[in-house]
Amino acid sequence: MEKVFASIITIGDELLIGQVIDTNSAWIAQELNKIGILVKHRVAVGDVWADIWQALDEESKQASIIIITGGLGPTADDITKPLLCKYFGGKMIVHQPTLDHVTNIFENILKRPMIERNAKQAEVPDVCTVLKNEKGTAPGMLFKTENKIFISLPGVPHEMKWIMTNQVIPLIPDVFPTGFIEHRTLLTAGIGESFLAEMIQDFEEALPQHIKLAYLPNYGMVRLRLTAFGFDKSILQGEISTCFQSLKEKVKDFLVVDEDIPMELVIGRLLKEKGKTMATAESCTGGYIAHLITAHPGSSAYFIGSVVSYSNTIKERLLNVSDEMLHTVGAVSEATVQQMAKSVLTLMQTDYAIAVSGIMGPDGATAEKPVGMVWVAVANKDKVITKQFNFRFDRRRNIELTSTNALNLLRIFIIETH
Amino acid sequence: MEKVFASIITIGDELLIGQVIDTNSAWIAQELNKIGILVKHRVAVGDVWADIWQALDEESKQASIIIITGGLGPTADDITKPLLCKYFGGKMIVHQPTLDHVTNIFENILKRPMIERNAKQAEVPDVCTVLKNEKGTAPGMLFKTENKIFISLPGVPHEMKWIMTNQVIPLIPDVFPTGFIEHRTLLTAGIGESFLAEMIQDFEEALPQHIKLAYLPNYGMVRLRLTAFGFDKSILQGEISTCFQSLKEKVKDFLVVDEDIPMELVIGRLLKEKGKTMATAESCTGGYIAHLITAHPGSSAYFIGSVVSYSNTIKERLLNVSDEMLHTVGAVSEATVQQMAKSVLTLMQTDYAIAVSGIMGPDGATAEKPVGMVWVAVANKDKVITKQFNFRFDRRRNIELTSTNALNLLRIFIIETH
Repeated sequence: MEKVFASIITIGDELLIGQVIDTNSAWIAQELNKIGILVKHRVAVGDVWADIWQALDEESKQASIIIITGGLGPTADDITKPLLCKYFGGKMIVHQPTLDHVTNIFENILKRPMIERNAKQAEVPDVCTVLKNEKGTAPGMLFKTENKIFISLPGVPHEMKWIMTNQVIPLIPDVFPTGFIEHRTLLTAGIGESFLAEMIQDFEEALPQHIKLAYLPNYGMVRLRLTAFGFDKSILQGEISTCFQSLKEKVKDFLVVDEDIPMELVIGRLLKEKGKTMATAESCTGGYIAHLITAHPGSSAYFIGSVVSYSNTIKERLLNVSDEMLHTVGAVSEATVQQMAKSVLTLMQTDYAIAVSGIMGPDGATAEKPVGMVWVAVANKDKVITKQFNFRFDRRRNIELTSTNALNLLRIFIIETH
Repeated sequence: MEKVFASIITIGDELLIGQVIDTNSAWIAQELNKIGILVKHRVAVGDVWADIWQALDEESKQASIIIITGGLGPTADDITKPLLCKYFGGKMIVHQPTLDHVTNIFENILKRPMIERNAKQAEVPDVCTVLKNEKGTAPGMLFKTENKIFISLPGVPHEMKWIMTNQVIPLIPDVFPTGFIEHRTLLTAGIGESFLAEMIQDFEEALPQHIKLAYLPNYGMVRLRLTAFGFDKSILQGEISTCFQSLKEKVKDFLVVDEDIPMELVIGRLLKEKGKTMATAESCTGGYIAHLITAHPGSSAYFIGSVVSYSNTIKERLLNVSDEMLHTVGAVSEATVQQMAKSVLTLMQTDYAIAVSGIMGPDGATAEKPVGMVWVAVANKDKVITKQFNFRFDRRRNIELTSTNALNLLRIFIIETH
C-alpha cells in the first residue's frame, strides 16, 4: 500500500485578483486528511481555458485524486464544465435527475420561474458520474481515468461541503485503500515560537522519522502539531500518543488545551463543567468576543450576553463608569475596565465577566495611549483582575489579539478562582 | 510592452492539512494588481524540500515574478532559506544589519534574552538582496535571475504586508514596466446570480475583448466586477468608465453601491453624511453585526453600541421584552424584535436601530421555527419595519447572512425614511 496524494485545483479569477479568500481548500484538506489522503499540492488558476487545461495536466502528474472547485455557476464567466467535457473526451447531455432537482428547487423552494440558464446546469458531460448537489443547482462530477479520479465541485462552500461529505469522501477508500494519518495538536499561550522551540529541542530531535512536529503561531498563541503516517493504525496511535504525552509534559507551564480547539471553546467547556455563566462588556473589540463565543453551538448554556459600550455615553449609562473617571483617567484605563467588568457582572447576573477598552487604531491614539494599548479586566463577584496589553499591529489584528488574550485571562482566572 | 505575470508560492504543511487558511495570497494579488501585474497562478506546497524545489522550477516557467511566502520562522520545520540558498547557488552568511535589528528587537522591545535560534534569522544566502522586515525578525530576500525575480517573505501576515508595501511593490515597476489593469466593482442585493446574468446578458455580450465581467456571489448578495487591461491608461479608464456606467444603469434596481466596499461601510457613509447614529440589539447574531461595523476605523462617529441579549433574561431586563411575550409568541417572533429595536433605540438614544432574533442551528429548532428562521426589525423613532428570513445553511453562514441582510434592511430604511 502506497501513500495516496491529492491535489486541489481552485478555479476563478476572483481568487487571483484577491477579491475572495479561498477557504474551501483548507476544509477539503482537513477532510481528506481524516481518511489518510495527503494533499500534496494546491493550485489556483483563473477562468482561462489554457490555464485550467494545463493545471489538469500538471496536477494529474502530482496526485491520484484531483479535486477541482469553482467555475460551475450559471453565469458566462464559467468555463469549467465544457472544458472538462472536452478534456475527458465526452459530449454534453441533459442529466434528467439533475433537471428534476433544479426544477423542483425553483418551483417549490425559491418559488420563482426557472430560466434557460438554470436549466443548463443540468447538462453534464456523458463521460462523468454525476454527484448530486442537494444544496444547490450545480451538480458535482466525477471523472475516472485508469488510475486517477478527478472530482469537480461547485465553489459555493456549503454546496461543496455537502457533496464532499455525502458523496466524495465515502467513495474514496474503495478506489484508493490508504495508510493512516494521525494528528495531535495542542495550544500554548504566553510563550513565543522560538522560546518554545528551544524548550522542546531535545524532544523534536528525538522524534522518529515518520512523526513530524509543526509550529503554528497565531494571535499571540502557538499551536504545536504532531503528524504521524503509517500503515498499522493501532501501532501508529500508540506511537503518537506516547510522543504527545511527552510533548504535553514539556510545555505544561504554557499549555492551554491538548486539542485543536479555539480558546473560546476551552472557556465554554470550563464554564459548562462548573455550571457557571459569563458576560462581556466590550468597548474596543466592538462585540467580537461575544461573536467568537456565540459562533459555537451550545454557547447559550454559559453565555448570557454583552454590552458593547462603544460610545462613552453607554459606558456611563449602562455600566456606571462615572463622568469623572472618563475625564480623569479616561475610557482606556484600569479603573474604567474594572468598573465595566463589575457592572456587567451585576447587570447580566453572571458568575464571570470580561471587560475591554483600548485603542485599536489607526486613529484615536494619544502620546500616553498609543495604538494597541488595551486594558482588560476579568471578574467574579469577589475579585477583579486587570492586565494591560500593548499590541503593535493593525486594527483587525489588534481586535483579534485583544479578544483572544482577554479570553485567556478569563480562562486562567476561572481555573485559579475555583 | 508585454503583460507581466506573477506567481505565488505559499509554503507550509499547515496550509495543506487545512489548519490555516491562506489569506496572504489574496492580499498579495490585490497589491500586484494595482500596479498592473496579473497573478496567473498560485500554488501551495508543504515543508518538503523536493516539492518546494519543483514549485520554484514550475512557477518560474509560468511567471516573471515569483513571490514565496512562509517557511522562514525560527523553528526547525522551516527549510525554505537553506533551500533558496542552494537553488540560487549561494552560501549562507550573517547579514549584520539584520543581526543588529534582531538584537535590538530582543533588547529594547521584547526585553527578553535573544537565543541562538533568533540570531540565526540574520543568516541569509550571499546571493540575495535582503529586504528589511521592520515588523519582525525574519528578513525578506530578493533573488534576481536573468529575466525574473524571486521574492521570499515571512508568512506572518503583518510582516509580509510591511515588506511588500515598503520594499517589494516600489521596486517592481523599475524591473518590469507593465501595462495597466483597471477594475470596477459594484454590489447588488436582492437578486440571484442567474437572474442578474439574464438581465445583463446583452451588456455582457457587447463587451470589448479586453474587458471582462465577473460575478461574485457572497452572503446572498452579488458583486459584479469589470476588469480591463491595456497599455494607455487614460483610454483604458475612459472605456471602463463608460462600460461601468452602462452596467450601473442596467442593475440600478438592485444596486447597493458602485464600489468594492462591504454593506456595513455603505451604512456608515449614509449615517455620517446625515449626522445620524445607530445601535443594535442582537440575539442570534451574538454581536457579529456590531463587530462588522466596528471593524472599520471611524465607526465611533455613528455606532453607539449594542446589547447582545443572548439569554431571554437580558431581553426582558434590558430590552423590555415581556415575560408574557416570550411565553406566547416566543423570542424568535415579530413582536419580540419590534420591542428589542424600540428599546435599544431608547436605551442607546440613537437615530436608528437593528434588532435580530432567530434560530442559527444546529440546535434550537422547533416544528414552527426551523433552523434558519430569523426575524429582523429596523427602527427609528417614528417607525419600525420587520422582515422574516429563512436561511437554510449552517450556523456560521446563517449568522453571516442574517447580519448582512439586517444591514441591508437598515440601509433601505435609512434611504426611504430620510
